[in-house]
Amino acid sequence: MAKASAVLKRVLVGRPFRSDSLHETLLPKKLALPIFASDAMSSVGYATQEIMLVLAVGGVAFYSLSWYAAAAVVLVMVVVVASYRQNVRAYPSGGGDYEVATVNIGPKAGLTVASALAVDYVLTVAVSISSGADQLTSAFNGLRPYKLEIVIVLIVLIALINLRGVRESGRAFAVPVYGFVIGILGMGVWGLVRYLKGDEMQAPTHDYTVESHVAAPTGILLVFLLLRAFASGCTALTGTEAIANGVPAFKKPKSQNAAATLALMGGLAIAMFTTVTILANVTDVRVVNPAEGVLLRPDGSVVDGQDTVVAQVAQAVFGKTAPFYFVAFMTMIILVLAANTAFNGFPVLGSILAQDRYLPRQLHTRGDRLAFSNGIIVLAGAALVLVVAFNADVTRLIQLYIIGVFVSFTVSQFGMIRHWNRHLKTTRDAAERARMKRSRAINTVGFVLTGTVLIIVILTKFTHGAWIAALAMGALFVMMKGIRRHYDNVAKELRVDPDAEPRTLPSRAVGIVLVSTLHKPTMRTLAFARAIRPDALRGLTVNVDDEDTRKLQEKWERFGIQMPLEVIESPYRDVTKPVVDYIKRIRRESPRDLVMVFIPEYVVGHWWERLLHNRSAIRLKSRLLYLPNVVTVSVPWQLQSAQNLSADEPEWSRPGDLRMGVDSRGRPLTDAQSSS
Amino acid sequence: MAKASAVLKRVLVGRPFRSDSLHETLLPKKLALPIFASDAMSSVGYATQEIMLVLAVGGVAFYSLSWYAAAAVVLVMVVVVASYRQNVRAYPSGGGDYEVATVNIGPKAGLTVASALAVDYVLTVAVSISSGADQLTSAFNGLRPYKLEIVIVLIVLIALINLRGVRESGRAFAVPVYGFVIGILGMGVWGLVRYLKGDEMQAPTHDYTVESHVAAPTGILLVFLLLRAFASGCTALTGTEAIANGVPAFKKPKSQNAAATLALMGGLAIAMFTTVTILANVTDVRVVNPAEGVLLRPDGSVVDGQDTVVAQVAQAVFGKTAPFYFVAFMTMIILVLAANTAFNGFPVLGSILAQDRYLPRQLHTRGDRLAFSNGIIVLAGAALVLVVAFNADVTRLIQLYIIGVFVSFTVSQFGMIRHWNRHLKTTRDAAERARMKRSRAINTVGFVLTGTVLIIVILTKFTHGAWIAALAMGALFVMMKGIRRHYDNVAKELRVDPDAEPRTLPSRAVGIVLVSTLHKPTMRTLAFARAIRPDALRGLTVNVDDEDTRKLQEKWERFGIQMPLEVIESPYRDVTKPVVDYIKRIRRESPRDLVMVFIPEYVVGHWWERLLHNRSAIRLKSRLLYLPNVVTVSVPWQLQSAQNLSADEPEWSRPGDLRMGVDSRGRPLTDAQSSS
Repeated sequence: MAKASAVLKRVLVGRPFRSDSLHETLLPKKLALPIFASDAMSSVGYATQEIMLVLAVGGVAFYSLSWYAAAAVVLVMVVVVASYRQNVRAYPSGGGDYEVATVNIGPKAGLTVASALAVDYVLTVAVSISSGADQLTSAFNGLRPYKLEIVIVLIVLIALINLRGVRESGRAFAVPVYGFVIGILGMGVWGLVRYLKGDEMQAPTHDYTVESHVAAPTGILLVFLLLRAFASGCTALTGTEAIANGVPAFKKPKSQNAAATLALMGGLAIAMFTTVTILANVTDVRVVNPAEGVLLRPDGSVVDGQDTVVAQVAQAVFGKTAPFYFVAFMTMIILVLAANTAFNGFPVLGSILAQDRYLPRQLHTRGDRLAFSNGIIVLAGAALVLVVAFNADVTRLIQLYIIGVFVSFTVSQFGMIRHWNRHLKTTRDAAERARMKRSRAINTVGFVLTGTVLIIVILTKFTHGAWIAALAMGALFVMMKGIRRHYDNVAKELRVDPDAEPRTLPSRAVGIVLVSTLHKPTMRTLAFARAIRPDALRGLTVNVDDEDTRKLQEKWERFGIQMPLEVIESPYRDVTKPVVDYIKRIRRESPRDLVMVFIPEYVVGHWWERLLHNRSAIRLKSRLLYLPNVVTVSVPWQLQSAQNLSADEPEWSRPGDLRMGVDSRGRPLTDAQSSS
Repeated sequence: MAKASAVLKRVLVGRPFRSDSLHETLLPKKLALPIFASDAMSSVGYATQEIMLVLAVGGVAFYSLSWYAAAAVVLVMVVVVASYRQNVRAYPSGGGDYEVATVNIGPKAGLTVASALAVDYVLTVAVSISSGADQLTSAFNGLRPYKLEIVIVLIVLIALINLRGVRESGRAFAVPVYGFVIGILGMGVWGLVRYLKGDEMQAPTHDYTVESHVAAPTGILLVFLLLRAFASGCTALTGTEAIANGVPAFKKPKSQNAAATLALMGGLAIAMFTTVTILANVTDVRVVNPAEGVLLRPDGSVVDGQDTVVAQVAQAVFGKTAPFYFVAFMTMIILVLAANTAFNGFPVLGSILAQDRYLPRQLHTRGDRLAFSNGIIVLAGAALVLVVAFNADVTRLIQLYIIGVFVSFTVSQFGMIRHWNRHLKTTRDAAERARMKRSRAINTVGFVLTGTVLIIVILTKFTHGAWIAALAMGALFVMMKGIRRHYDNVAKELRVDPDAEPRTLPSRAVGIVLVSTLHKPTMRTLAFARAIRPDALRGLTVNVDDEDTRKLQEKWERFGIQMPLEVIESPYRDVTKPVVDYIKRIRRESPRDLVMVFIPEYVVGHWWERLLHNRSAIRLKSRLLYLPNVVTVSVPWQLQSAQNLSADEPEWSRPGDLRMGVDSRGRPLTDAQSSS
């Protein structure tokens, strides 16, 4: 079946890409930024909008409150970036939040972070692609009815590309990411110029009004609304931790470069977020959450399907000219790249968790393509379920999103405080201590602030859908703990006590060659069995047809095969049971003997040939596994159709390799070949 | 994966049934009739109706032509039953049409019949269940909007029951089949009584009129219409061949009993078909094919959704009283049983074809439940596709149905003629020769008549959908021929030329034990490897972690393991490639050596545990298969979770067993235990 699925994959996604090893080098800052920052920066595409959507319940007047929420978000961004610069310096190995939490707090904290991150990756895919489709349908309104279909196709496409195993490339990321930055900041500059010129810039919705289904909140409810808006705006922070997981991919000095890139990313993200927020207010953009109200045109008609804030701002600043389409398109592309980021980050996380035996081990083994492919399929499948269930509605998906991010932020910052405390105990050097104390202060502020945000998120979002994310995190936590427990139990069960262990060898080795007919595979098996020279050796055949058996016995004689041929009866055409019974009998008669069962096996070249051969052998082998002191010896015979296949596995660019700083063969990247 | 699907199956269909062996005996005629005749008799449920639907294009007046079509159908039934009585006597082995065609004409003819029968089984399921749902919705009109859903649920249900492995039972069949016979014939008797009494019996539609969308045909077109009606009526013959396939299940004298049962079945089917046809004419039933016209009430309104002819006749004779519901219900049940028959006949056909290597061999092996389950799923899946594509419309499905039946009738009768010719050449006894000549005459009439019907069917139905069935038969034919060619090629490739064969044994056996850590499975593997005493023996470990490898070497020393431990490097965590390369190197250095690779393997109890263990071992083994002169030795270690599993396979009642005359263990049934 694995082969059949490989064929299907071949058809769908083509041959595995072999990456051009010339470009496989460690990343300079200018290429690392686009790779690691696309996720964090892409949230500029929806963060301002989500703040405004929450506030819209209070009517048009409430939009002005977005200043407060946005300012608070910027503050959190500054603090989180500053905090993660400490993480990057202290943990250059790339374990990220999981490592920080595990080392400094304990395995449960680490596992909590890991569960949160895993859920987060799924939501990154769902939210980013849904928002990307919003950008597209804002530029081309005719596509709006097909939004869900567009989202599904994009997710499937990204999954296929990653199954194919294309390697991330800093160069490929650079154009759209820098294009996005230029687009948004250019929009800000041009907007400033027009503002100073006294041009009136108006969003297409500037004269629309909001009719809210709920009463405008006052007092404590107003505070709560503002907190909700702030919590929604905090989506701008998702993806900030990406660099902390990718330090090994940086050129030396790794930590320093990573910290610098983090600062640059933070600066750009804040600048872009602020730009969009200011422009949205200046140009009087109106948006409303369809669940809470409607947008009315000046003539009183209801707007059905709203454009994104970014698209509206771009239209206000540029009109429907080329720059408008450039901004909308770049925003869409960067959101798609952010989703792709999840497909690269997920395997890295899986590999780290598998190393600690929280996930099946093969996820840590290079080259086990099947395991990684399954991971990609799981990620895409979960994202598809989410977008279908939530109709690709960014606003509703956002409710699930930020809880995971802030769980991992908070736990990680707490871990960093402990990290510095531990190091302060042993460090004597005053300058060093001062530096550590400063770092600890930064991380403490980070912890307090992200913890506060987490509480706000839980308070304002839990019933709106965050409970689903929390539930998924809990389920993952329990599953991974179960896997670890299983591995631990098995390890305990298998531990050898060198003194208690009986060291006696089986007294004799009895060889049994399974024979159905005397063709070349059987002849080879007989020859091999004789070469191994067990203490006793015999052929064994199951009589399912008297005539065939008689012929076999004749040939056995005629070919002069120097071992006895035993015939066991099975008038009912079953092969497995008579053989198993026969071997059980041998085991009873001489329990100290080791029984070797030689089974000829065909090696075929096509997946469908597998359906036609070896089925009895496979069934028999799976049954013999349950008999103690019985080993099966597979003697392969390569059919002609298998001749063009080799024992070597094809090379494969694993998603996430670049983030771990390894090339497509799994070797650590170096600066040496760097061409830039 | 097989295990995972087994779990799914367990959840869906429960534990495999263990049949009560007390009831497992050969079938007396009274129990054989219901088992084998349900398919043939069930067509009474729709045959008359299909004739009338064709004729309705000519308007109400044309219904009277149904007498001619029905009479022709009865004639064909008589001839076909008489012909098959010859088959049953000449071929008591149960190979049926396939055997007759293969032996007397050749493999291609046999394969043609086999393809036709396979397609037929699919259509039996689709047509019978669709017609059964029609009967149900005729009794309970409120269910009509859900007909397709009812059909789908029924097909899935029957498939699940057969996956579970419940054994056919003559007793279980007897009640509904004899109930159906009593219902239909009772309806005839009661109708006759009422007719003689001068009661007016009127179908609910007796005063409706037919408005045809097409002009009433005249001249040659009228003949063509009559032929189409006749061809549709010939569906009454489907299933007649079932007894010929099931002779081994009969009590002795098998052939004689089978022939008698066949005659009884033919007589009952003709009686019932005639009853329904007469009553339909007497009670003025009106039905029309919605594709060709509409049925109008006396007030001119259009009828939307028609009741079946059987239901209308029953209502005319009995009114809406208990006997009406009895007839409708029994008709539905027998149609469902007919579909179940296909699920039992399909594996029997598959087993016979697999024996001749036209299908994968495991279909002929008893106990390979997976293979048979796949067959059931294929059958149900194909039927589901058909009912969905044709909206469970019996009239449209019928167009595809009969071509397969008559292909196999015609080819088989031609084979029988050749059979008698061959035997006549060698037989001298005059009485014997006379009997043979009489049989030949019957089969010749059968051949001419069924051949004529086949031509009529092709002429009148091909463009109406029969081409789909023909295409499917062609595809099956090509596939089965391809499988046979593959097996033949492999057999040729593997044939041993005793003189040309080099008889030299490998010079030495080199044992390599794969070691990752020194736990119990490894210790056992080492002990077994030593017990086998190859000429050279060493441990082999892949260094993926320096620290782990150092510990392993220390332990190796400490445990005093008396063989060298070789360490091969793999800084990139891949295990497969370094081992394959190492073994390739050994092969190059001493090409005449036999390399035995000992691999410890875990045996686990739960399907999910498989995902957590052995993955590296499985990958490595699959790669080593491609290296010549390398054998792999699997040394199983049974984990505690596997302790409650045994090497024995669970028993399973294979669908179709009873038809082949074997019990649930595959042993031929005997008369001995018979309790009736």
